[in-house]
Amino acid sequence: MDSVPNYIIGVDLGGTNIVSLLMSRDGKILARDARRSLAKEGKERTISQIVTSVREILREGERLKVFSKAILGVGIGSPGPLNTKEGVIHFAPNFPGWIEVPLMQILRDELNLPIFLENDANAAALGEWWLGAGKGVDNLVLLTLGTGIGGGIIIEGEVLHGAWDTAAEIGHMIIHEGGLTCGCGKQGCLEAYASATGVVKRTLAAIEKGEKTLLINLVENRLEDITCELIFKTAEKGDSLARWIVEETARYLGIGINIINPEMVILSGGMIAAGDTLFKPVRKYAQENALAAAIKEVKIVPAALGGNAGAIGAAATVLKKKSLL
Amino acid sequence: MDSVPNYIIGVDLGGTNIVSLLMSRDGKILARDARRSLAKEGKERTISQIVTSVREILREGERLKVFSKAILGVGIGSPGPLNTKEGVIHFAPNFPGWIEVPLMQILRDELNLPIFLENDANAAALGEWWLGAGKGVDNLVLLTLGTGIGGGIIIEGEVLHGAWDTAAEIGHMIIHEGGLTCGCGKQGCLEAYASATGVVKRTLAAIEKGEKTLLINLVENRLEDITCELIFKTAEKGDSLARWIVEETARYLGIGINIINPEMVILSGGMIAAGDTLFKPVRKYAQENALAAAIKEVKIVPAALGGNAGAIGAAATVLKKKSLL
Repeated sequence: MDSVPNYIIGVDLGGTNIVSLLMSRDGKILARDARRSLAKEGKERTISQIVTSVREILREGERLKVFSKAILGVGIGSPGPLNTKEGVIHFAPNFPGWIEVPLMQILRDELNLPIFLENDANAAALGEWWLGAGKGVDNLVLLTLGTGIGGGIIIEGEVLHGAWDTAAEIGHMIIHEGGLTCGCGKQGCLEAYASATGVVKRTLAAIEKGEKTLLINLVENRLEDITCELIFKTAEKGDSLARWIVEETARYLGIGINIINPEMVILSGGMIAAGDTLFKPVRKYAQENALAAAIKEVKIVPAALGGNAGAIGAAATVLKKKSLL
Repeated sequence: MDSVPNYIIGVDLGGTNIVSLLMSRDGKILARDARRSLAKEGKERTISQIVTSVREILREGERLKVFSKAILGVGIGSPGPLNTKEGVIHFAPNFPGWIEVPLMQILRDELNLPIFLENDANAAALGEWWLGAGKGVDNLVLLTLGTGIGGGIIIEGEVLHGAWDTAAEIGHMIIHEGGLTCGCGKQGCLEAYASATGVVKRTLAAIEKGEKTLLINLVENRLEDITCELIFKTAEKGDSLARWIVEETARYLGIGINIINPEMVILSGGMIAAGDTLFKPVRKYAQENALAAAIKEVKIVPAALGGNAGAIGAAATVLKKKSLL
């Protein structure tokens, strides 16, 4: 009999949903729970949702004869900035009231299991590295393209944490100093240009300037209904403004992909549904914007684990902390 | 008696000079040789200069009773891109004729000692980490501000190499897409703005636009005589154009220092002679341009090893490869 517990739990704490997984050490998913994070109802409510979700998973486990003592620990992928060593979340932009929350301590007391904390984008990168698009690739960057742009960097198979656990803020790399104002207050961040929010903003700005586009009719003049998804779909239909916006977005992303010199860049988030419409120009601009030697073989691919990446990576964090991966 | 050889040699291969050092494993410099690299006279000439320099150091060593068998190896800090594992320099911008040069093999045959290759900026970072401004700081970034901008990144005490040995091309991060054309052909690289070359170019452009400055009189209208050093000195005298150029340079550098989340950023190269004139605004802009959590405690300091940093770091490379550091 193996004396090391064989199972792990991964929790992905998102602004909208909490996803929890019970996994075996060899990467099989045995149970899954998804529920609302209810972030707007306050910190206690969300923490209680996490606890309920993990308990649900533990109950599922018991039905499968996987008992608590067979569980190595619980990994939590959380928005940050946070301190992975002390298990404290400094603050979380979409979670009102979360300031210096000692989540590791709180959950350890509630669940009586070892708890490990990881930044959500780092967890997603680790998940894709362990079981997804980045399997076997030891130097990779993952960009999550959503409301914002998150980033996780894996170097030699390890998550890059930097000195204060805030590394890989790739969304806040400045690619056009003095340019568009970002949600973080700075000007010219990659996120201000190439996040879903940035794509919509740039489109609305162009429409305001009088650019013609099918989009206006598609939303029956309710410009506030224009979404990033709609813009990408309209680009596929050949609309010239939408196509230009997608091309520009790809150019900004290509500019962002030229520093860390990874073997692979994984793009995740809703935007990747656009497929080749997005990936083809991103690959082109990444090549144009990088030193030849650095980028010559970089693979730019879509994430493979979908909504489970964060929770899988959070589970992998437990294995990493125990030096089992 | 210690059976591991106690001495190492470090060679810094620069566009103008070659600096070689004989060092003890505990970091003492026992002998130093500096000579011209004669890069314009061709590859064979420069390689012969390296060999002569190391042989000179070996002779010095013999006088101190440090014989060849007491030497662990020779580390070479070289411009790149290069392959550290195979010891091949792909090409080197300031070394005409250097294309796919198997330097490790060539020097091993000539010197009959183990040879290790490292990128020059990485070597300088490693040198400052071992014995200079970054002693005891395990997450740091070094920027060399000269004709170009080089970068070396140390993470958890190890040099970041990335997937193809070309990581840390910090000078070619794009900070203003569509902006000034860089020597590398891209637009908007940090190097195009904040290298000594960039500083002079931006100054000349401002003068051409009719900006008034003491600089014009100081060079007696020979604008081609304006150097980065002169601009910084003139800024200290209160010249408003020169001050504005320095301020802008600091802003660009501050923008560049916001990704890797190091504990420390070390600036090296001729430009740092400007002291507080440069460091004060760089610190200000680095804070303004970074996420609060990431930059709150970052130290921005001048390099401490001067012209020896590259050679010391090249020597340290030998210790790193032998897992002795």
